[in-house]
Amino acid sequence: MRLSRYFLPVMKDTPAEAQIVSHRLMLRAGLIRQMSSGIYAWLPLGHKVLQKISAIVSDEMAKAGAVELLMPTLQSADLWRESGRYDAYGEEMLRITDRHDRDMLFGPTNEEMITDIVRQELKSYKDLPLNLFHIQWKFRDEIRPRFGVMRGREFLMKDAYSFDLDFDASRLAYNKMFVAYLRMFDRMGLQAIPMRADTGPIGGDLSHEFIVLADTGESEVFLHKGLVEEPVPTEIDYEGDLTSIINSKTNRYAATDEIHDAAKFEAEVDEADRVTARGIEVGHIFHFGTKYSEPMNAKVQGPNGELIPLQMGSYGVGISRLLGAIVEASHDDDGIIWPEAVAPYQVGLISLRPKDETVSAACDDAYAKLTALGVDTLYDDRDERPGAKFATMDLIGLPWQMTIGPKGIEKGVVELKRRATGEKQELPLDKALELIAG
Amino acid sequence: MRLSRYFLPVMKDTPAEAQIVSHRLMLRAGLIRQMSSGIYAWLPLGHKVLQKISAIVSDEMAKAGAVELLMPTLQSADLWRESGRYDAYGEEMLRITDRHDRDMLFGPTNEEMITDIVRQELKSYKDLPLNLFHIQWKFRDEIRPRFGVMRGREFLMKDAYSFDLDFDASRLAYNKMFVAYLRMFDRMGLQAIPMRADTGPIGGDLSHEFIVLADTGESEVFLHKGLVEEPVPTEIDYEGDLTSIINSKTNRYAATDEIHDAAKFEAEVDEADRVTARGIEVGHIFHFGTKYSEPMNAKVQGPNGELIPLQMGSYGVGISRLLGAIVEASHDDDGIIWPEAVAPYQVGLISLRPKDETVSAACDDAYAKLTALGVDTLYDDRDERPGAKFATMDLIGLPWQMTIGPKGIEKGVVELKRRATGEKQELPLDKALELIAG
Repeated sequence: MRLSRYFLPVMKDTPAEAQIVSHRLMLRAGLIRQMSSGIYAWLPLGHKVLQKISAIVSDEMAKAGAVELLMPTLQSADLWRESGRYDAYGEEMLRITDRHDRDMLFGPTNEEMITDIVRQELKSYKDLPLNLFHIQWKFRDEIRPRFGVMRGREFLMKDAYSFDLDFDASRLAYNKMFVAYLRMFDRMGLQAIPMRADTGPIGGDLSHEFIVLADTGESEVFLHKGLVEEPVPTEIDYEGDLTSIINSKTNRYAATDEIHDAAKFEAEVDEADRVTARGIEVGHIFHFGTKYSEPMNAKVQGPNGELIPLQMGSYGVGISRLLGAIVEASHDDDGIIWPEAVAPYQVGLISLRPKDETVSAACDDAYAKLTALGVDTLYDDRDERPGAKFATMDLIGLPWQMTIGPKGIEKGVVELKRRATGEKQELPLDKALELIAG
Repeated sequence: MRLSRYFLPVMKDTPAEAQIVSHRLMLRAGLIRQMSSGIYAWLPLGHKVLQKISAIVSDEMAKAGAVELLMPTLQSADLWRESGRYDAYGEEMLRITDRHDRDMLFGPTNEEMITDIVRQELKSYKDLPLNLFHIQWKFRDEIRPRFGVMRGREFLMKDAYSFDLDFDASRLAYNKMFVAYLRMFDRMGLQAIPMRADTGPIGGDLSHEFIVLADTGESEVFLHKGLVEEPVPTEIDYEGDLTSIINSKTNRYAATDEIHDAAKFEAEVDEADRVTARGIEVGHIFHFGTKYSEPMNAKVQGPNGELIPLQMGSYGVGISRLLGAIVEASHDDDGIIWPEAVAPYQVGLISLRPKDETVSAACDDAYAKLTALGVDTLYDDRDERPGAKFATMDLIGLPWQMTIGPKGIEKGVVELKRRATGEKQELPLDKALELIAG
């Protein structure tokens, strides 16, 4: 993409309204703009990251056997009256009346709707197990939206729902999601630690939060150092036994401040292994049995013909929130440092002198070659000062920067910079392409 | 995808509420389920088609130089007060009050919001031309939603917005979109005819509807036969002169019943060339100049430093509606016939005897080979009667059906059926794979 034809409104100054670094950097790097309180437009660069994160989430869900569908944003209040949550949910639910005076709402989550879908279609235990997920915009009318996309009102969430005949099968479904979550965060370059959690308004008896460690996180967390160092396996056999992977990530102390037990922490963890850090919740998984299937009458015939209420779990990931979490976890004074897998472009190509035909020809050539290699490149072909171009590239945080100017062309080299380390080297274009294409 | 692990609730009976064939077939083939009046959940098969159509639209927009972003579903009423449309829009606008009693609305379109975004960021004529688009859920509170996704309330729309300095440049932007529309519908296997249109509530002075011809279309259309036969070029140079392509699609009579002039039709078109057909509107493009930029003060500095209001156009495609239009245009008595490019899967693989190990092994082998070739395959591995499996495959309308059973295995062949023609042939697996991948 040529920057001259793109829409990348970066900001030099720190926006006054932004209190945390991810909010500041996402505004400054032209990823988002606030449209109303807690409601954001995703500018082209931000939209690309949103798509990359969504694709990773979708892919890992499919590997774990979940099937994607798409439920609407607006829901009927009647569904929520069936589960009893319509009155219970409080003011965070955005209630809407349509032109025929029907009570609607902008879905904050989809337990009721998915239960409604499956109760109409699933007839027999033979239709199980089933795990359905979607990636859709949700709305929670936060009383005080803040921290940019970290606590917005309209937000993008992946939510999956598992349906099983009995607790043991449902526990297997939960385990698959648990491991899929480890995989997806790992692919995004995040250290995400599962922590046992209260179940809150979703309900249920088994629940984990996934917490990304970041100095600027919203809550304090306490954990055994070994959990951070524990690697996540890259290849998973989801039909096999997943308990050893889960145990390796849950067999040592880890707790958010909400449920932290200082005495237990000190008793169980050697002083040298104790980590106190800050964290951001990016995912939450629940097993809640028949909490929705009983009142909503979602039952299937069992092997002996009896009607059995479905055992359910739900599995959420805040996709728009993840952008904020990744920026919190990966930035420096100059801007964002995107992990490779979620970077909007892999390479930022800087032309030092776009009005010089030789330089432009060399840049066009490099751009064509990068594109032919399938390397997604943002090409700064604008007539701007080099200093401004370097600052913009550092700010938007693409993994590689390739700079081409008259001096390098004389020497037959381009300058290649690694954003994460700042390491620079001069080398011929073909060597640079080899390095980038890996 | 193995059907035993999928969620494909097909219906044998014709749903009573569905009045038109696309609505009936989309329900029966398990593509959609109604959640509230005019609001649908997209089941896995429907969601896949939605994604395929979105990808084609997105790709053709990018080729024409438009840049993708994503605006939120909810908008502030104040923006619409600036343009004067808040009161003018009427009851189709879903008006919402949040917990702080602020007036919001579920966006039916995004002219105001995109104008708000660019007026904050565009400073100079050097920032032009610019064309921004998004694919997002919209809501129009139809008084009587009907015909399934053809006239729903919550619907997926691609809307693009062009910004230029003067009319001539804006006209070039309009032309690019015009040709991109021809390309995208052509890729979806649709005959879409551009017809000059009234501009309606969007306003403006130049506008075309794109009408898909289908026997069951909502409105009557009148056109010169040559327009239907006129091919759309597959390779477009968007920087070149597009007028000859546009002329070839607009130089003969074409009109919807709303603006049809029978006398003109008869005077301009030989009787043998007159086509009277039914059509479905799937796209609508508008040039409307400064209708929004003037009242909303969206101006840039011109070459001489003067402030110039932006010339704008907007370009909509009903993505969810397109599914209905494609089904209307491409089906038979047995079900849907998906054009290749939008089919949810390319091949339906039918195991005639899943409990027979030899048959299962042969099917698993074919499935693995299809997958290795990158052919997206839906594998019916369920323990069901062959008749039901054939009926389901015809109903969901994948381009190819491959059937494997004990008799074929003895002869060393599979049966391959083309859904569109019904043509069947028996041939060895490797030949069948060549034909499919070819």
